[in-house]
Amino acid sequence: MFVVMRSEATEAEVIGVKGLILAEGLTPFERASAGRTTIALVGEIGRRRGELRAMLEAAPGVDTVTPISKPYKLVSREFQPEDTVIRVLDTAIGDGSLTVMAGPCSIESREQLMDTVDFVAAHGATIIRGGAFKPRSSPYSFQGLGVEGLRHLADARQRTGMPVVTEVMEPSQVDIVAEYADILQIGTRNMQNFSLLLACGRAGRPVMLKRGFGATIEEWLMAAEYIASAGNPQIILCERGIRTFETSTRNTLDLTAVPLVHHLTHLPVVVDPSHATGKRWLVKPMAIGGVAVGADGIMVEVHPRPDEALSDAEQQLDFEGFAQMMDAILAVHEHVKDLHGDLNRGPGAGRSDGSPATDPVATAPAAEPAS
Amino acid sequence: MFVVMRSEATEAEVIGVKGLILAEGLTPFERASAGRTTIALVGEIGRRRGELRAMLEAAPGVDTVTPISKPYKLVSREFQPEDTVIRVLDTAIGDGSLTVMAGPCSIESREQLMDTVDFVAAHGATIIRGGAFKPRSSPYSFQGLGVEGLRHLADARQRTGMPVVTEVMEPSQVDIVAEYADILQIGTRNMQNFSLLLACGRAGRPVMLKRGFGATIEEWLMAAEYIASAGNPQIILCERGIRTFETSTRNTLDLTAVPLVHHLTHLPVVVDPSHATGKRWLVKPMAIGGVAVGADGIMVEVHPRPDEALSDAEQQLDFEGFAQMMDAILAVHEHVKDLHGDLNRGPGAGRSDGSPATDPVATAPAAEPAS
Amino acid sequence: MFVVMRSEATEAEVIGVKGLILAEGLTPFERASAGRTTIALVGEIGRRRGELRAMLEAAPGVDTVTPISKPYKLVSREFQPEDTVIRVLDTAIGDGSLTVMAGPCSIESREQLMDTVDFVAAHGATIIRGGAFKPRSSPYSFQGLGVEGLRHLADARQRTGMPVVTEVMEPSQVDIVAEYADILQIGTRNMQNFSLLLACGRAGRPVMLKRGFGATIEEWLMAAEYIASAGNPQIILCERGIRTFETSTRNTLDLTAVPLVHHLTHLPVVVDPSHATGKRWLVKPMAIGGVAVGADGIMVEVHPRPDEALSDAEQQLDFEGFAQMMDAILAVHEHVKDLHGDLNRGPGAGRSDGSPATDPVATAPAAEPAS
Amino acid sequence: MFVVMRSEATEAEVIGVKGLILAEGLTPFERASAGRTTIALVGEIGRRRGELRAMLEAAPGVDTVTPISKPYKLVSREFQPEDTVIRVLDTAIGDGSLTVMAGPCSIESREQLMDTVDFVAAHGATIIRGGAFKPRSSPYSFQGLGVEGLRHLADARQRTGMPVVTEVMEPSQVDIVAEYADILQIGTRNMQNFSLLLACGRAGRPVMLKRGFGATIEEWLMAAEYIASAGNPQIILCERGIRTFETSTRNTLDLTAVPLVHHLTHLPVVVDPSHATGKRWLVKPMAIGGVAVGADGIMVEVHPRPDEALSDAEQQLDFEGFAQMMDAILAVHEHVKDLHGDLNRGPGAGRSDGSPATDPVATAPAAEPAS
Repeated sequence: MFVVMRSEATEAEVIGVKGLILAEGLTPFERASAGRTTIALVGEIGRRRGELRAMLEAAPGVDTVTPISKPYKLVSREFQPEDTVIRVLDTAIGDGSLTVMAGPCSIESREQLMDTVDFVAAHGATIIRGGAFKPRSSPYSFQGLGVEGLRHLADARQRTGMPVVTEVMEPSQVDIVAEYADILQIGTRNMQNFSLLLACGRAGRPVMLKRGFGATIEEWLMAAEYIASAGNPQIILCERGIRTFETSTRNTLDLTAVPLVHHLTHLPVVVDPSHATGKRWLVKPMAIGGVAVGADGIMVEVHPRPDEALSDAEQQLDFEGFAQMMDAILAVHEHVKDLHGDLNRGPGAGRSDGSPATDPVATAPAAEPAS
Repeated sequence: MFVVMRSEATEAEVIGVKGLILAEGLTPFERASAGRTTIALVGEIGRRRGELRAMLEAAPGVDTVTPISKPYKLVSREFQPEDTVIRVLDTAIGDGSLTVMAGPCSIESREQLMDTVDFVAAHGATIIRGGAFKPRSSPYSFQGLGVEGLRHLADARQRTGMPVVTEVMEPSQVDIVAEYADILQIGTRNMQNFSLLLACGRAGRPVMLKRGFGATIEEWLMAAEYIASAGNPQIILCERGIRTFETSTRNTLDLTAVPLVHHLTHLPVVVDPSHATGKRWLVKPMAIGGVAVGADGIMVEVHPRPDEALSDAEQQLDFEGFAQMMDAILAVHEHVKDLHGDLNRGPGAGRSDGSPATDPVATAPAAEPAS
Repeated sequence: MFVVMRSEATEAEVIGVKGLILAEGLTPFERASAGRTTIALVGEIGRRRGELRAMLEAAPGVDTVTPISKPYKLVSREFQPEDTVIRVLDTAIGDGSLTVMAGPCSIESREQLMDTVDFVAAHGATIIRGGAFKPRSSPYSFQGLGVEGLRHLADARQRTGMPVVTEVMEPSQVDIVAEYADILQIGTRNMQNFSLLLACGRAGRPVMLKRGFGATIEEWLMAAEYIASAGNPQIILCERGIRTFETSTRNTLDLTAVPLVHHLTHLPVVVDPSHATGKRWLVKPMAIGGVAVGADGIMVEVHPRPDEALSDAEQQLDFEGFAQMMDAILAVHEHVKDLHGDLNRGPGAGRSDGSPATDPVATAPAAEPAS
Repeated sequence: MFVVMRSEATEAEVIGVKGLILAEGLTPFERASAGRTTIALVGEIGRRRGELRAMLEAAPGVDTVTPISKPYKLVSREFQPEDTVIRVLDTAIGDGSLTVMAGPCSIESREQLMDTVDFVAAHGATIIRGGAFKPRSSPYSFQGLGVEGLRHLADARQRTGMPVVTEVMEPSQVDIVAEYADILQIGTRNMQNFSLLLACGRAGRPVMLKRGFGATIEEWLMAAEYIASAGNPQIILCERGIRTFETSTRNTLDLTAVPLVHHLTHLPVVVDPSHATGKRWLVKPMAIGGVAVGADGIMVEVHPRPDEALSDAEQQLDFEGFAQMMDAILAVHEHVKDLHGDLNRGPGAGRSDGSPATDPVATAPAAEPAS
């Protein structure tokens, strides 16, 4: 349920509504949307629905009170019709530009990272990726360089001016990773690690949430809701393939998820064709496909010498492959970007008046933390 | 295994090689490729492999004898590096143009079909689709107009000059459907109906083979091999979504299958976003995605009044939706078509010399029927 | 919807009700249940539901008119609460005894079949299985002995007195297979070959319908409804594993399907652990599991020398393995059979009064053929 | 790779071998098996394999050095042929007895827990289950009583003398949960939460590892290997259903996993039919099935008034349902337990001489912790 305040509502009236919500043991989340203040109330509402609605409709300054039909509330497009735009250093995700996250699967050495970063920076990447803490199926495989890897990442940011995204594997790592990285990545195996979701939600950094390879789209959005409910609306979704009976690719890339989540939520979504296909030569066509269906960006693994990589050797692009992919996706993005406005929002979603979107991240006050 | 004849081989030498193959109880299939005659031999080879190879290498006019590593032989790109191009009436599938198959899910009446056909013809469709015999989960649902529907299709072809594709459900229907239709469609539930595959393989018409919703890509290509082994190399593959745990779409569209089958076979592949998504508003973005990853065409369901449709009401486009989709995919195709040459063929596949492909259908003599 | 006649209803009244149904363009199917005549009406009912019900309730001899909530009607337990028992030669399926269908995957020679049949007959098998027409993924694999195989099967029946089940692959084969076999098998790849379902439904022989490896339980029961709607209520279901992401077994055996279909339908169900697991040493434990959850029988592949088999070499039992499995499952069946009465019927299903079931097949007049 | 010492090897020789292994940067894990000391060495072995083997074969007291073919080492039956038996308070898991873990999904109040515990204790349960920290798809659902719930569990143990199993959701919770609970449960969504696996591996308590609903059997055993590699060999596996396209049950219970993991590992495995089916009336038949295929135990949810439960209301048994299930599974276990010896071990596994198994947990010295 969310409250839309009148355009002339006073700050005191907004505070009054939030007080009423808190008094009911629920949490208010405030956004600015189309020049109005909207306040979502979340928590265990249960049978109080009718009663709450009547009480809020009667409060001073309130225009309308609207239920949210989906199980996810804060991340739903019903609550926030405008796209979320996430700004990190000099780049933005979700503003219509094409985000390209590129770098090695694992950071193996300072040289390997810097060589890669220099190349991808020169060829159009906008964000550096690289694994410092690595989730591996086997306890006996290379587990990443850890904090040393984080330091290399920070150096790479310094060198290029590009922001850095890297994976965090447990709540107690959140602080150290947030110290070095600009965006916290939650991996596919941890999509329903609820403690980690909440910890990242409290870290004050944008979070990239990969879809669980066995998770439905609804579960994915519920996982995003965990992050948002902890006070962090800056969430990037990442489709990276789901597990099916097909064995000729590592996973089955579910590109239909892109227009679907654009319709259901206001969050940006990027596509990871490296993990989805598991085959280097399929990365370029599927990156093109991702851009074509309206993804806000692409995440790919790049390595100076993929055959010597300590992890994911089969799927990392070499430099030439990355350059070729970039040429292709930049051209395709140029041609498809105007198709996206109405393309991915589905029936009844988005702005009916065609007015330019307010950037909700830039204008909204910080959301209330979940106590 | 296949034999490549010397460029100067005589017709008598070709006949001699085919005779040797027949004498071993195997079937020879002849193709022209890059100016040479190649002859595949298929059947139960088992342990005779080495012996056969030696015998054929010694035969007059033979240049090389090469094993085929895949379980599918005639449809593999190893045997035929050039793309298969299928020409029907005035259109071609697989020649780099964009095929658009459009029409109603079921033919419900003459008027419904003609209204639809007139509209899609005026907006860029190249082939008419429409169900006369309908496979339905329930015996109590509308089963199609049958032969009456076929007659309407033939009239629609007459009216527009466009070829017609329609489903055939059992071997005994092949003759009557082949009398009225230009392309025989084998539906997803019949992908491994081997009797039907063989019957269609003998019908002398191009066949469109939909992927089984529970079938791997390898099984799909083996099903195509059944058709080819019956003497018919004119096969169009159609990706229409596979069954997974995800419930927010009817099926999961496996767009990665497009570059994969382009790499593994020489057959054209079209994408059906209507059945894959089951939601009208997802058809356009996923049609764009299909074109972007290199599909040779798109198949969509269109109905004058989708909400009144006797089948698949949720997923059929209305006229305006079709027109919007066409605008989008024609523009995207224009921009991505030059990316396809090297894009979808994978490592080691396709022509290394960049020479223009010979059209194998136009120049090859009719393949030997399987006795 | 079905009509229950009064216990004192006359034959004329029954004929009258059937006439009313036929006059509406629907098909009546008659069963005797608990001493009363019940008549299902099936076809496209649509919006006439209320009207039809009122008309039938007013007809002479009618006691009650009840809707059927499921999309399958004739095979639903709502329509027929008593278990279907199928009697073939001297054996019965679904009467509480343990059916064991055993024999080679493919009939390779007369000797191979007779050796196997003699052994399994001496160790408790009740039905002979053996493939004469074989659906194979590859057109170049052994396709079965065809009619010669059918003749061997008929000889095996003659020799042992046991009935024979074998696969039929297309409508035009139904007559010849029905001439030699007692039970027609529809394979997993043909579960939604609707033409074949209808042809088997008209053949006057019991039909064993394997679950499609990509089919839901509801689709499986709808396929059974096709057979029943063609006039044949003698249907045996066979669970043989579904396709999932797990690769350590050939398929994933869905044993939960056994109590589910016992709850939803009145049809007997057997379990095929050979195809489900694809591994010989897993056949015995999973056959035990199938019997334990209440299956009416087990179907297994047995070969004198499995390693030399022309098909499914990995999964066929040798003679010793079969004998060990039989010892185990006969013992388990003895101990679990009394658990089945209430076990598999779920909430609200089955007979509330605990009265002994009438055998509907033995007492019911032949069902009306679908015209 | 593992070393089997000679039966007359001295303690000094054992220490010598372990020293050699440590000097190579690898970790030695010691077990007693059939009266001999065996020592596994794990870590990144890579290309040193041949060299290491030669060095160890030459060391004093060494009998044989054997490679382990599977990616999991310590949990493989190759390394430890005898079944692992886990003893907690007065009960044992994996010793041939039937373990029954029963209790509410969530602990909702002291009374609800004690009522349930008293009933299940009186009807044959051997271990108490109950959720204190609850992983919920929605951040707005009941999240469990937390530490208060743990205290109730400890009281329930006090009251009944039965051990307690409960879920731990993050590494920082391990200490507090291990303080109150006897067995730490890792839930399906955390199966590849590698930080949590390692933390539980170091906690000195037996761990029950649920299979991820999207995880293969091999990934499940690799997750167990993480726990073992941290020094904890006391692991119970729990099959609870996997995610497939079938929608009539919550998950698809993969009972074939039971004989498979018995063949591949020495760990006990229990079956959870509550979460697998999601339907109360299917719990009993599938519990029977689990026992029949050789599971070491069953885990079920029981609630005094399931319809009022705060979580999983559809699938919790009421008291009568639990009592009926117990009657059935105790009877079945009695009849099938002698079938298990050879049943579940597959080809080449287990003891060839039929000698009674040594209890490796009781006799083996504590495994080396991974430093």
